[in-house]
Amino acid sequence: MFDPVEKLKEYVRHASVSADPQFKAGMLGAQNFVTGLLSEIGFKVEVVPTALHPVIVAKRGDNPQWPHVIIYGHYDVQPPDPLDKWTTPPFEPVIRGERIYGRGTADNKGPLMVHLTAVGRLLEKTPNLPLRITFVVEGEEEIGSKNFKTFLLANKEKLRGDLVYFSDTGIPNPEQMVITVGLRGMLAFEVEITGPQSDLHSGMHGGVLMNPLQALAELCASLHTPDGRVNIPGFYDAVVEPQPWEREQLAKLGLKEADYAAFLGIKEFHAPPGYTPFEANRFLPTLEFNGISGGYQGEGTKTVIPSKAKVKITCRLVPNQTPDGVKDTIFQTIRSRCPKGVTLTIIEQHHATPYVAIPPDRSNTPKDQSPILARGFRAVDKAVTEVWGRPPLYLREGGSVGLIADLKQVLGLDAVMLGLFLPEDNLHAPNESFHLGVMKKGIETSERVLAELAKG
Amino acid sequence: MFDPVEKLKEYVRHASVSADPQFKAGMLGAQNFVTGLLSEIGFKVEVVPTALHPVIVAKRGDNPQWPHVIIYGHYDVQPPDPLDKWTTPPFEPVIRGERIYGRGTADNKGPLMVHLTAVGRLLEKTPNLPLRITFVVEGEEEIGSKNFKTFLLANKEKLRGDLVYFSDTGIPNPEQMVITVGLRGMLAFEVEITGPQSDLHSGMHGGVLMNPLQALAELCASLHTPDGRVNIPGFYDAVVEPQPWEREQLAKLGLKEADYAAFLGIKEFHAPPGYTPFEANRFLPTLEFNGISGGYQGEGTKTVIPSKAKVKITCRLVPNQTPDGVKDTIFQTIRSRCPKGVTLTIIEQHHATPYVAIPPDRSNTPKDQSPILARGFRAVDKAVTEVWGRPPLYLREGGSVGLIADLKQVLGLDAVMLGLFLPEDNLHAPNESFHLGVMKKGIETSERVLAELAKG
Repeated sequence: MFDPVEKLKEYVRHASVSADPQFKAGMLGAQNFVTGLLSEIGFKVEVVPTALHPVIVAKRGDNPQWPHVIIYGHYDVQPPDPLDKWTTPPFEPVIRGERIYGRGTADNKGPLMVHLTAVGRLLEKTPNLPLRITFVVEGEEEIGSKNFKTFLLANKEKLRGDLVYFSDTGIPNPEQMVITVGLRGMLAFEVEITGPQSDLHSGMHGGVLMNPLQALAELCASLHTPDGRVNIPGFYDAVVEPQPWEREQLAKLGLKEADYAAFLGIKEFHAPPGYTPFEANRFLPTLEFNGISGGYQGEGTKTVIPSKAKVKITCRLVPNQTPDGVKDTIFQTIRSRCPKGVTLTIIEQHHATPYVAIPPDRSNTPKDQSPILARGFRAVDKAVTEVWGRPPLYLREGGSVGLIADLKQVLGLDAVMLGLFLPEDNLHAPNESFHLGVMKKGIETSERVLAELAKG
Repeated sequence: MFDPVEKLKEYVRHASVSADPQFKAGMLGAQNFVTGLLSEIGFKVEVVPTALHPVIVAKRGDNPQWPHVIIYGHYDVQPPDPLDKWTTPPFEPVIRGERIYGRGTADNKGPLMVHLTAVGRLLEKTPNLPLRITFVVEGEEEIGSKNFKTFLLANKEKLRGDLVYFSDTGIPNPEQMVITVGLRGMLAFEVEITGPQSDLHSGMHGGVLMNPLQALAELCASLHTPDGRVNIPGFYDAVVEPQPWEREQLAKLGLKEADYAAFLGIKEFHAPPGYTPFEANRFLPTLEFNGISGGYQGEGTKTVIPSKAKVKITCRLVPNQTPDGVKDTIFQTIRSRCPKGVTLTIIEQHHATPYVAIPPDRSNTPKDQSPILARGFRAVDKAVTEVWGRPPLYLREGGSVGLIADLKQVLGLDAVMLGLFLPEDNLHAPNESFHLGVMKKGIETSERVLAELAKG
């Protein structure tokens, strides 16, 4: 068997930045590395082309009686900029202390290596393991998995399985494992306000017309109540209150508001009443402004009344909201609140359905879940408890991972998400690293999870 | 005597763009052109260095008993971009129809040529004209006359005069002359709001803190009342209502609201009650947003909660407001309205005092005015009526020309501003031009004005 840390170094050396065509060689290198390693541990590998970067699909086990687990990963990484902030070059992995540094070590090359190693070891010990395993490793996660749904739709038959299993979520510290059971959905759009037909001199024409920047400010200011809730009729109608056990799990994390405020660099929180900040960013939907622009933005002054002003907005959604369900009320409200004298255009961008898969022991409706999913959750719970000495926590996260909702929607499969990266791993930032202790224990855990699943 | 149109062509060929160091040769060329022409018509010329572009000071007449008129102009022009929008090259002047095209033809080379020609002709006819004339021609008007006040303070003695006289304002059409009797002042500043210490992921942290973009929107939205007035306590306290004759003069312009709305490309005006749009942009102060920025502004989406958001604001001020008089109430109000959970910084930029010089026949307090200013206004009224066949209108403009307030403040001098450029002259835009008919009549008028002033 290979050495997972040496193999990870080799993997990280392939600069697989999906966003930038200059890294074409790195993308191909990473792809070949993954297909090679999968072949080495006995998988039948197929490289499925998409409109941009191909998806690697690799299978072992063809007995239709065996359970079928689909392990997801991605071989692309974030751009390494700003390069001058890296202590050592991003694509020359090095070990310092208990960490391996390099772009992609944590997101997602290290975690994928955890599962590749676990599978390799397990199959070495048990070549006839009664488990069907399919790796699906895509190359566009860092650019929004744009072609992943199309890929899923075209390869539905191949991916008929029982369970998705992967690691692309986080844990709070090396001692406490977390199973991510939910992610927020998203509705992204842009609002453009147009006033005069061209930019005007604010001396000649100031004070006679509605300035698009003022109209935009008035519109944006109307979208929240002073207590921090979203001020759109019906916005919260479909929101399901978190269950008491979810608040309890979260409380067990032991997070301190003062620490969180210090991390964010803010003096006070601004979350809706009845929710701690840790609850608000997991259990509540939001409407956040991500960017605003209009008029002169350079140094000094330009006395202009701009023709146009724009704001970029994303709403995070929670169960049982859906992008289609909230879109109309949001857009209608925005249109109705546009000040007179200007015109308003809404440009729809992407969206994602919120996702939640409650472990069966916690669910109010356990019958809704497949026996194999229930077994998956129990297998992870058992393995984590054995390896880490304490059970995992089951938590929702505030972010959105559209492909999870796609997997659910297209394949009808839920996911067991074993968190492996730490807050200090610097994902998407300079000096990204992966904790070698977590990696080692992760491999042990994953091997046990898969062995347990194979028991059928 | 020289041919003013040929001389103007020669002058325009010097590409004197003050904003761009690449045009150094053009700046020097224009400066030499002006000093040469002033010498040619009998002036003693001095080139006074400043921190950037020098000011030309040229004098004739040294009898201290004679009235002393100071003629202002500027030899610098706006950048010519975008070049591809010009029908003919900006620095190769050509005549098409009744217009001469080229950068600076109207702003301010043509109007300065009007006065240079008038002075030249008058002195040719009357070499012993009992009038002291000082030309002050600066090279930084298009970049905000940054060093002009310093120049004035250092050269106060040299510029001890009775009256400033110049043409750098507009007229509505070639038949109707306008004397600009007032300009709005300005207070420019920037408001920066800081929330979290760095940009945050809106999935991980959305919904727990005050988003700086939201805080900025709420703050900006609070600064106007729904009827279009500025919503700052005490803001209007010092504003002097326009006198009935001012509204009458304006009405004589015969402007139509429908035409103005069509020109601006808006469906409706948004001016405070009791004022037509034409009155609002001359007689009322404003608070206009000139630029707003924060967060992601590129294509598509970035799920970020930005650390900072900014808005650029200019207030136009009217008599008897002063920048210092309104600053405190504006800044205090803005500080008091900043939402909790973010911090606010105000960055002061430039300011200008509003200016008004009411012609003596209209003034409620004629004793306040110097006899020579009164004579200046009467001279212009008479000359315009003779040359154009109808008297000029006396109007305030909505823009701000800081140097006028500087001249008033440092030298204690009021200005008689003879408008010469037309709306269709395309100042600061491609295909700038100057109307040759207006130029010809302007020369005749200016010659009469100066002859009249010389009568003492």
